Amino acid sequence: MSDFPKTPRTTITRLPKRGEYDKETIYAILDEALYCTLAYVREGQAFQIPTGFCRIGDKLYIHGSVGSFYMREIAANNLPVSIGVTHIDGLVLARSAFHHSVNYRSVVLFSQGELVTEEAELYTALEAFTEKMCPGRWADIRKPSKKEWKATMVISFRIEEASAKIRTGPPKDDEEDYDLDVWAGVLPLELVKRAVVPDPELKEGVELPEYLAK
Amino acid sequence: MSDFPKTPRTTITRLPKRGEYDKETIYAILDEALYCTLAYVREGQAFQIPTGFCRIGDKLYIHGSVGSFYMREIAANNLPVSIGVTHIDGLVLARSAFHHSVNYRSVVLFSQGELVTEEAELYTALEAFTEKMCPGRWADIRKPSKKEWKATMVISFRIEEASAKIRTGPPKDDEEDYDLDVWAGVLPLELVKRAVVPDPELKEGVELPEYLAK
Repeated sequence: MSDFPKTPRTTITRLPKRGEYDKETIYAILDEALYCTLAYVREGQAFQIPTGFCRIGDKLYIHGSVGSFYMREIAANNLPVSIGVTHIDGLVLARSAFHHSVNYRSVVLFSQGELVTEEAELYTALEAFTEKMCPGRWADIRKPSKKEWKATMVISFRIEEASAKIRTGPPKDDEEDYDLDVWAGVLPLELVKRAVVPDPELKEGVELPEYLAK
Repeated sequence: MSDFPKTPRTTITRLPKRGEYDKETIYAILDEALYCTLAYVREGQAFQIPTGFCRIGDKLYIHGSVGSFYMREIAANNLPVSIGVTHIDGLVLARSAFHHSVNYRSVVLFSQGELVTEEAELYTALEAFTEKMCPGRWADIRKPSKKEWKATMVISFRIEEASAKIRTGPPKDDEEDYDLDVWAGVLPLELVKRAVVPDPELKEGVELPEYLAK
């Protein structure tokens, strides 16, 4: 896959060697994230909302209630937004306070919201939301009713301007500090799934589906 | 602890019963987060940066290089910002697509940046950063040199306007769906620490400190 163009808004100026612009890297970071932070300007002030999302091709989708104030604002005015996701992969414990750091993978992109009105696109996006959250789930559940469709708003954001910033690996200390008697290394962090908790109202006899049993 | 005032900017309008305004809840959510998302306006456009932070009392601190463009921007102009953190605690798997959700705890606050110039405050903040990341670490490592202090910028944000939004518990389905043969429940998620990875350059004979051995 190709690169996103480096624009003044997406070019990494601080520690530029941590910057990445290729689509494959950026899409992988986005796809692994369970939510994004959506920032936009309202009356001159920056607002931010954490929200679930999915990506299909070069479009990112969010969904919510037609009663959601910020969704309506973004959809009505095709508001320019900044969307970000971050994964923290580890704590980087250096010999010096100064070189302590974090291993991370983050993406920030700029786009404008567009209300999704076409039924096929709406349906595809909603299925993708569910399948991203829990692969195999869509086939198993009750699909949206007409009333529920009417209550749901989906907004798309074309991904045209994006960059990633990534840090990996061990600490980088000053040359003279490597001789100190201080332990140094990385404390890895991982978001893990725990054992499922059945709904107390679960109907008797309904078994855990295979896609959740692994 | 008391509540933060409900202002037009922090009042939860969508699903208001998920809103929380008490300081204890908000501080606990902030303190557990390893990074925050800082959003601000540059030339009419919303920007966002993920960054480490710590909280001391009613102030939140970020730090970075004096060469950091956005830090300088915020410090020089006491820019108004929005700061957010989010924890995803579980995937909420309902019987219907419509009621799928996520258990989460998020905070959004509004503040203005203020450059920290007093030495005692700077030092306390930097120690708090390190201790938040890894309790016990500060006593063990090489403290910042004069040169490193000069290269570090710390900005404080007084927390005066903040709200939390929280979802917990099992799915809430429509009455008539509880009889469907669909498994429902929560898939809990947790950010866990894995076994430490020693720096390949670790000096021979340096042992893992006790505060990391648990």
